[in-house]
Amino acid sequence: MTHYQTLLKVSTTGKSFHNITTKLAAIVTESGVETGLCTLFLRHTSASLVIQENADPDVLVDLANFMDKLVPESAKYIHDAEGADDMPGHIRTVLTSTCESIPINRGHLVLGTWQGIYVWEHRQHSHVRELVVHISG
Amino acid sequence: MTHYQTLLKVSTTGKSFHNITTKLAAIVTESGVETGLCTLFLRHTSASLVIQENADPDVLVDLANFMDKLVPESAKYIHDAEGADDMPGHIRTVLTSTCESIPINRGHLVLGTWQGIYVWEHRQHSHVRELVVHISG
Amino acid sequence: MTHYQTLLKVSTTGKSFHNITTKLAAIVTESGVETGLCTLFLRHTSASLVIQENADPDVLVDLANFMDKLVPESAKYIHDAEGADDMPGHIRTVLTSTCESIPINRGHLVLGTWQGIYVWEHRQHSHVRELVVHISG
Repeated sequence: MTHYQTLLKVSTTGKSFHNITTKLAAIVTESGVETGLCTLFLRHTSASLVIQENADPDVLVDLANFMDKLVPESAKYIHDAEGADDMPGHIRTVLTSTCESIPINRGHLVLGTWQGIYVWEHRQHSHVRELVVHISG
Repeated sequence: MTHYQTLLKVSTTGKSFHNITTKLAAIVTESGVETGLCTLFLRHTSASLVIQENADPDVLVDLANFMDKLVPESAKYIHDAEGADDMPGHIRTVLTSTCESIPINRGHLVLGTWQGIYVWEHRQHSHVRELVVHISG
Repeated sequence: MTHYQTLLKVSTTGKSFHNITTKLAAIVTESGVETGLCTLFLRHTSASLVIQENADPDVLVDLANFMDKLVPESAKYIHDAEGADDMPGHIRTVLTSTCESIPINRGHLVLGTWQGIYVWEHRQHSHVRELVVHISG
């Protein structure tokens, strides 16, 4: 039984998706785990994780457009001291995910062909987002 | 320490919910794990997992109606080459879950009395959906 | 390898957020696990888990207001025998989370500075909600 942990820092560029699939695959290889579980945990409340299509980038554009409309920055929020994008960022985080768990089989994450793992930045400014990667095997 | 993995294939019949609770219970028994963790991972981006009421089937109807309205197939999406139901399927997946983790106690999933586990197909055509079941104990 | 499990009962006071971060920290200490994974599983279909800002309580007010508007109790649902707040509670649960997994490092949950863990009660009456805490290390 192994518990392997590492911290991945993701530099975001304002509202955007950052594909971390390749970096995670390298961490899984590094862990040496053949059969196990990889859990991702994002240490933030206005950025989130999504597992989505890795082929057509328009999917991410549509996703962002949908969320912009569902949780508008132009709406009135009580918590507005940190900017118009802050409270919508919190809500968007709640509607998506802060953690994801992906099994490892034969040394690889069992992602489907079309699945990529993304950090979704909900704030308008750049941030360094910390992702804890936990692997048990 | 055991890491037990198996692949469950779920044949869907277009937009629908598929109760997989009984099948998962059998897999947990098969694993022989008494105290542990069962993680489910769906290898798709237009189908998702939900843990919801297993008693009144109208709950699932209301849930589907709500989602149809929240993420309409009639809306305009940039990514539309794969059909009007594809992009809404991606968004609905993001708003629900791709993975779930359920502890195992005394050889059983610790589900509440009213909880059932469902694969939610968001596409209009039938698909075979692959669910990786990972059990550690 | 340890698998440590305990049941946390959370008494809710109608629609509300209950911060369980301190209680969970105590359970992690009690488990003696230094490096591992803590999984939370809520045994209900009309209450959910959220990891959100622990500083300004207005964030939770805005979050509740948003959800009240997105999934209104005044809407027409087929499943209405258990009260106007029941079906919205199911939908709100699906849009948020039933389980969360948080790595443990040096004996502590790796939560970010601003992250708190809450049980979100979606029903109008008080309930005792059962949360299974599973720790592997």
